[in-house]
Order: sequence, then structure tokens, then C-alpha cells
Amino acid sequence: MSEPTDSEPTGAEPTVLVLDAEPPPRLGRLTGRARILHADEDTLAELLPLADVLLVWDFSSHAVRRAWPGEGPRPRWVHTASAGADHLLCPELVDSDTVVTNARGVFDQPIAEYVAALVLAFAKQLPRSLELQRDRAWRHRETQRVGGTRACVVGSGPIGQAVARTLKALGVRVAVVGRTARAGVHGTDELDRLLTRADWVVSVAPLTEETRGMFDARRFGVMQPSARFINVGRGQLVVEADLVDAVRRRWIAGAALDVFEQEPLPADSPLWDLEDVLLSPHMSGDVVGWRDELGAQFVELYELWAAGKPLTNVIDKKRGYVPGH
Amino acid sequence: MSEPTDSEPTGAEPTVLVLDAEPPPRLGRLTGRARILHADEDTLAELLPLADVLLVWDFSSHAVRRAWPGEGPRPRWVHTASAGADHLLCPELVDSDTVVTNARGVFDQPIAEYVAALVLAFAKQLPRSLELQRDRAWRHRETQRVGGTRACVVGSGPIGQAVARTLKALGVRVAVVGRTARAGVHGTDELDRLLTRADWVVSVAPLTEETRGMFDARRFGVMQPSARFINVGRGQLVVEADLVDAVRRRWIAGAALDVFEQEPLPADSPLWDLEDVLLSPHMSGDVVGWRDELGAQFVELYELWAAGKPLTNVIDKKRGYVPGH
Repeated sequence: MSEPTDSEPTGAEPTVLVLDAEPPPRLGRLTGRARILHADEDTLAELLPLADVLLVWDFSSHAVRRAWPGEGPRPRWVHTASAGADHLLCPELVDSDTVVTNARGVFDQPIAEYVAALVLAFAKQLPRSLELQRDRAWRHRETQRVGGTRACVVGSGPIGQAVARTLKALGVRVAVVGRTARAGVHGTDELDRLLTRADWVVSVAPLTEETRGMFDARRFGVMQPSARFINVGRGQLVVEADLVDAVRRRWIAGAALDVFEQEPLPADSPLWDLEDVLLSPHMSGDVVGWRDELGAQFVELYELWAAGKPLTNVIDKKRGYVPGH
Repeated sequence: MSEPTDSEPTGAEPTVLVLDAEPPPRLGRLTGRARILHADEDTLAELLPLADVLLVWDFSSHAVRRAWPGEGPRPRWVHTASAGADHLLCPELVDSDTVVTNARGVFDQPIAEYVAALVLAFAKQLPRSLELQRDRAWRHRETQRVGGTRACVVGSGPIGQAVARTLKALGVRVAVVGRTARAGVHGTDELDRLLTRADWVVSVAPLTEETRGMFDARRFGVMQPSARFINVGRGQLVVEADLVDAVRRRWIAGAALDVFEQEPLPADSPLWDLEDVLLSPHMSGDVVGWRDELGAQFVELYELWAAGKPLTNVIDKKRGYVPGH
């Protein structure tokens, strides 16, 4: 019986290549069942041909788009620890046989709660109360009743559905808009009509060629002066310059943005101090324990894959998201 | 047929005396059916003997407590445009035959939404996001999942029940505490045990001799270091100095206060700039249209009263609130 050397594989374990900024938790469960390699943006292209599986843990990176078209074999399965897959779907990956899965499910309820927090903060004027508190000023105001208001939720995947459920639980009348109409979901052909009557417009659509820049001057123009726009989807769904204009001209009453055309948001962006605009740094879904959940989700998927069973959370690469039911 | 002079009543309409700071809306509906007199804090004692009905529109005033024990006949019915009646229930009124009604129902859903706004703002760190936004700082943080947390709602009237329903709709596990245990309501003997396991302690109890100062050093001491205390009931339910100490010592993680021992909150109160404490000026239930709702509610009650029918929203004057079901 000969001792294996460091340079020889000790068995037939598949190789999992992890693209990470910080190491993912829970991968220890794969010890003995997978060889784990790590790549950063610089080494990804070189290591990609060695991988059976690519785990895109650093979901803010666009390294996959750049590295994928290179030479050599490619992983048969790519998993991204995010809801969106726009950061990795280059044409070569879309056209390949590689299966792409996402973190469907992990972010639904946290993002829904986050949207509810923003809706209620606007309605109850919490930002103004905090300002007045700093000035030690006692100033009674009348606030807005949320029950009976109308929301238009743009995006009909599991996150959009969770947002709709949570807002409905608060008595909001919710219309959900998806790519194509189906039971409980309006098609995009109805979007403009629904926008004209919404108090809350919530953007949770996946970023695809069809949705890029969908919130532009025309769409802000049909929203009501009392409407608030909330983006927890992707920054590129919005033409930011048009949003800035729409808020300055009072076409809409305000906005809350968790995602941006460029992240981190540049320090010279006019958004930072635009009145009635609330900003947060792409964190709407990231509750305490989220990394553990994402790690455990990958391990579960890996167990299916290693057993030759069909994967769940498989993205339709042409559409860019997991198709609905 | 002689013309009536100004000093003679023109008919048998009852006299409604309104104690107001600003005039109530909707009373025009009573034209021809009631004589409307107006009083302020200074003239109330003098006008009180002329009134069949007293409408306490200025719910921040304690003038009724002072004027009621005086000389002369007293109104047979007192209505307060507020949920609490603590500001008018002097012993002489409690012991009299006068019926007291309140604004039961008008504030339930608005206050429940307000509490949900505060819970979500704490969980999602909105105040911190606003601070970072002012500094143009991009700082990702992990926030708290609200679903699955525990709330202890102290107060089992319609406002407490509405708060419980709304928090449950967000996935919070809610225990309601009332004066006496009944279906779905824990008795005050269980309060301490429930406080030790609550993430959110919501104070919506009526102010009575039993509840005054109920949130004191002992009660804050059994709450958890992660707990947030929310008071939308009455300021005097809380020993404010004890709350300040509890927050400073990190016995609890924060507080949101809409009501105070003294209102307006004095400019030198240590609460104004206490970290992790959110203040608002007694406005949790005051949504746009609330004055109209309160005016319309009084008119409806007046119609019952004038027709000799039993009034709704009748307060148990000894207990200080409308008894539960």
C-alpha cells in the first residue's frame, strides 16, 4: 500500500472550485467527498479547467464572465450563492451544457421583511422623526395609513411572491407583475397601467436584457406624485440619472434603494443626499446566519449532484432566472 | 309669534360643550340637533353646568380633572376623542352617574402599523443606515430576521389585539398580557416570565392605578440584552429614569417611545440623545384623516344618545377602559 503524495488525487472525488472573497462556511461537511480549490479574480481563469463544480461565493464579482470564454474544459455545474445570476451569464456559459443553479429561497423572507420595513418607514415618517429627535424638536405630524394602499411588485419569482404576501398581510392591495401573465401575476403589458395607481412600486425583477433600465424617465413619469419607488432587485434595472431627476422634480415622493448601477455607490453620487431617498448597501436579504444558510444550501445541492440526482434551483440560462410555476 | 332673542334657547336641543384646542370637524352634522358651546382650559369650569354632553376633543388637557369637582349640574355623558381616559377620570366623575365613552377603534390599526414600523426599523437597522447615508459611507451589515422572533404585548384591548394580529402577520410569535387571563390573553402574573423571553416588549396598556409605573428597574432587569421596549400606550406606564438607566447599562438593546411622563418631552430630557432610542411626539395613531374619523365617531354616538339608545364604547370608570370580551 503506497502513500499518496500531495500532487496525486487520493480518490475520485470531484473537484469544487470556490470563487470567494471570504471563505464560505459549512463546506467542511464535504471533507472526503470533494476536493476544494479556491480562486480569486486573478487565478480563476487558470483554475477553471480543473473544476467539476464552480461555487460562485463572491456574488459581487464579474470574474466568471471574464474567465469563462477561455481555453480548456469547463465545470459541468455552476452554483451562485445569490438570487440573481446576471453576474455570470456570459453567452458562452448560456450556450454550454453547464447547469447553473442559484440560492433560490434563502433571501425571500428577509427581503420581504426589508421591503415592509421601508414601506412602513415612509408611511410613518421615521426618517423625519429621527431628524427632529436630533434637533430635540417636538413636532406632531399626521402619518399615512398603510392598510388600503396599493403596491405594484415588479418581479414574480419567489422573492416577489414573498414581498407580495408580506405586504398583503399588512393590508396593502398588491399587484404582481411578471414577464408573462399567469394566475395571480400580471404581464408586463399591464405595467404602465398598474404604475399609475401604485403608492409603492417595488422592483425585485431579475436583471436580464429585457429588464435592464426598465425604470426610466417614462416609467417614473407615469408614477404618481405620492408614490415611493423601492429597489431591492438589481441596480441596473434603474436608469439612476432618471430616478434622480424624477425625485428632484417631485414626479414621485421618494425612493429607497438597496442596489445601484455601481456598487459600492460612488462617493460623488447625487443619490447620497437626495431628499426623501433612503440608501442601504446591498444588504436587504442578508440576515444574521445568511452565510450559513447559503453554505448549507450548496452542500445539499452537492449531495444531489454527487448522487446523480436532478438538481433543484436550476436557472433557465436564456431567461436568466429559475422559471416560475 | 315672538322672535326668540339670543339669550333664549330656540328649542329643546341638548347642549354639547366642546373642550378643544383646535375645532373638531364634522360637528356641522349636528346643526339643528344640538347647541354647540366651546370651552378652553380657563372657561371649562364655568360652562360645565350648562352642558348635557361634554366632548373632550383636546385629549392632552387635564382640565376636566380640575373642573369636574366644582359646583353645579354636570353633563350626563362625556366622550373623549382618545383611546385612554386617564386624563379625565377624577374620583368625582368615576363615582357619578355620568357615562364616559372613548374613541375605541379609531386608533387600532394605525397604532399596530406604527409598532410594526418600529419593530422592522430596529431589526433592519434603518436608523444606522440613515446615519451612514449622511456620511456617504457604504457599510454592509447583517440584519435581523423578524419572522420567528417573540413579542410580549402588554395591553389586551383592541389596540393590543391589533398590534398582536399585525406582528403575527409578520411571523412574530406574540404573547398578549392583560389584567386578567382569558382566552388568548395571559394574566399579569405571567408578565415577568414572558418578558424574559421577548425580543419586543410593546406597551399599550391603559393608564390606571395598577399600571402606573409598571415598567420599572425590576421589569427592565428581567428583559433580555437583545430586547427592544416600545411604548405607544401612556408615558406614565414607564419610570423614565429607570428606562434611561436600563438602556445605558445595556440591560436592553433599545427603545422606541411615542409617549412620555411629560409631554411635550422637555428639551433637557436625557432621552433625546440616548443611543438606540427612537422618539416620536405622541402620534402613533394619528394617520391622515384621523380627526375626521374621530368627529364622525362622535356624531354617530350622539345619534344613539339623542335617540335614547345605549351607547357603545362605554368605559368601565373604575377600571379606566372599555372592558374586553
